[in-house]
Amino acid sequence: MQVLSVKMAQPTTRQAEVLNKLNFEEFVEKLGNIVEKSPMVAAAVWSKRPFCSLQDVHKAIGDFIDGLPIYGKEGLLRCFPDLAGKLTREGRLSADSTGEQRSAGLFDLTTEEQTNIARLNSRYKEKFGFRFVLCARLNKKDAILAGLKTRINNSKDEEIKTGIGEAKKIC
Amino acid sequence: MQVLSVKMAQPTTRQAEVLNKLNFEEFVEKLGNIVEKSPMVAAAVWSKRPFCSLQDVHKAIGDFIDGLPIYGKEGLLRCFPDLAGKLTREGRLSADSTGEQRSAGLFDLTTEEQTNIARLNSRYKEKFGFRFVLCARLNKKDAILAGLKTRINNSKDEEIKTGIGEAKKIC
Repeated sequence: MQVLSVKMAQPTTRQAEVLNKLNFEEFVEKLGNIVEKSPMVAAAVWSKRPFCSLQDVHKAIGDFIDGLPIYGKEGLLRCFPDLAGKLTREGRLSADSTGEQRSAGLFDLTTEEQTNIARLNSRYKEKFGFRFVLCARLNKKDAILAGLKTRINNSKDEEIKTGIGEAKKIC
Repeated sequence: MQVLSVKMAQPTTRQAEVLNKLNFEEFVEKLGNIVEKSPMVAAAVWSKRPFCSLQDVHKAIGDFIDGLPIYGKEGLLRCFPDLAGKLTREGRLSADSTGEQRSAGLFDLTTEEQTNIARLNSRYKEKFGFRFVLCARLNKKDAILAGLKTRINNSKDEEIKTGIGEAKKIC
């Protein structure tokens, strides 16, 4: 009976306990880059403590993003780097993005693949006015290229929805 | 008559014309730091082109900030640096913040003034859970110290409102 009631009260995980003890400066220091170039998101979500798990933190971040107006969501998609873009080639990605793009094989593209992705990224930005965002950690280069080719045919509304969904997976 | 109609149509200033021609990557490159550590704000506001003046850009930024939920506004206030804080002393402020804080005389504090401001900044953060934000460009160190001493007695709601108002002046 006691076990049941503890379960119902959602026991706080060890990781959440650690996060709950941080003041906002430490919290932003630790999670500031959880949404690319937007420490404001982690800084806002600090108001939602206490968290009972990392999933709970993730949900709070998702809720903040979902609450943004459409043009705020577009702004967020503009802050991600191009996949296999200039920053990748010049080694100027953040540590997190480097890891993500490396695991997807985006550092080992043939010249043809690189040209293809660059061309599609440009067309995508030209059409939608924000970047193609896809969780590189969960995809390999072929899936990314296929995704670009397909998604570029979507409507702007569909792409805001899909891009934001991918941005949340990246968090 | 022609002059009148041109005036009524709000002619685009030269500066706004330049901004209107930028793609979102160039726009974020140029204005990304207009709200401290929050390039997402400039990135979002790009959706509101064309602008007819810099005031128009400023208004769009203000509208975005006003549209944030309370905890988003708190998040924004958490992204500013302490006035005369650790980053100031260690020379780790952004170029813009360095200029602002230098012009206010915050690089030339006596030890007593420094201790006073540090103590008040800590109490302020402890009480409200975000930073004391005041446009250093428009104030000198005495006014800043006086502001801290007074505003620390306000309610949280008042300070969110006042801090956000100052944040907009800083933009």
